[in-house]
Parts: sequence; C-alpha cells; structure tokens
Amino acid sequence: MKKNKVTVEIYGESYAVKGDAEIEQIERVAALIDERMRRTARSNPRLSTTKIAVLTALNIADEFLRLEQDYRQLVQMLKEGK
Amino acid sequence: MKKNKVTVEIYGESYAVKGDAEIEQIERVAALIDERMRRTARSNPRLSTTKIAVLTALNIADEFLRLEQDYRQLVQMLKEGK
Repeated sequence: MKKNKVTVEIYGESYAVKGDAEIEQIERVAALIDERMRRTARSNPRLSTTKIAVLTALNIADEFLRLEQDYRQLVQMLKEGK
Repeated sequence: MKKNKVTVEIYGESYAVKGDAEIEQIERVAALIDERMRRTARSNPRLSTTKIAVLTALNIADEFLRLEQDYRQLVQMLKEGK
C-alpha cells in the first residue's frame, strides 16, 4: 500500500505526517489535536507546550481506553445474542 | 463526585493529574502515553519532546477515531438485529 504524506499544522507548528491513513483522516486527526491542545492551554495557561501536548495525549488515551471497554462489552452482547 | 489526584511520571516529567477517573485508570493511561512517547522517540530520534508528545497524541487520536467508527457500526448492527 502506498504511503500518504501531508503537512498539517498543530498548535502553530508544522508536522510532516506520513502513513497508511487517508489524507482526510490525517487532517481530521490533526484538527482534533490542535483543538484539544488549545482547550488544554486555555484551562492551564501557565503550562509549557510539551506539557500541554502530554496532557492532551493523556485525555485522548483516557477516552480511548473507555471506548475500548464499551466496544468489548458490545462485542460480548452481540456474541451472546447469537 | 470527589476528584481523584495522583502524580504520574511520563517521559521523565512529573504530572499532577486530577479528575473523575479512578487512580488506577489515570496510572494506566499515563503508562500508555509514556510507552508510546518512548516508541515515537525511538523511531524519530531527532525530534523535540514537544513534537514527540504531539505525534503520540496524533497516533492515539487516529486509533480513537477508527475505534469510534467501528463502535458506531456495531451499535448499528445491534439495532438492526432487534
């Protein structure tokens, strides 16, 4: 599969991202991180950019693990329904 | 609901995290980010810590959006099965 490349701007910095994801998906994800970092910065105005980025990653990973748990429960429900 | 507070270490820095999440969940999420940042750093040894953190957030958000899509499809399947 050919790799896609795109340059995105996140929190004022450019990132050259390449990967298997579609360009639209990379741009959607970049916009999400940019928005989340700005939100984290507004709530914590004295934090460094690194800490803002780490806290943003923490929040998204928290949501990811919760969704993963819900997903597993749904899969279980589907299995039991059969 | 009372807020939980815990100090976690991520990529050599301490973070005082508070929130509604259980302490075990906060620690699990912090360990995930720490491990992912180290992995990103190994693949991109010349990046700044901020860029490592942003790329880590990007990767997790990418997985999150994909899982969310799968989750919605599963919910749809469950609805149609009724």
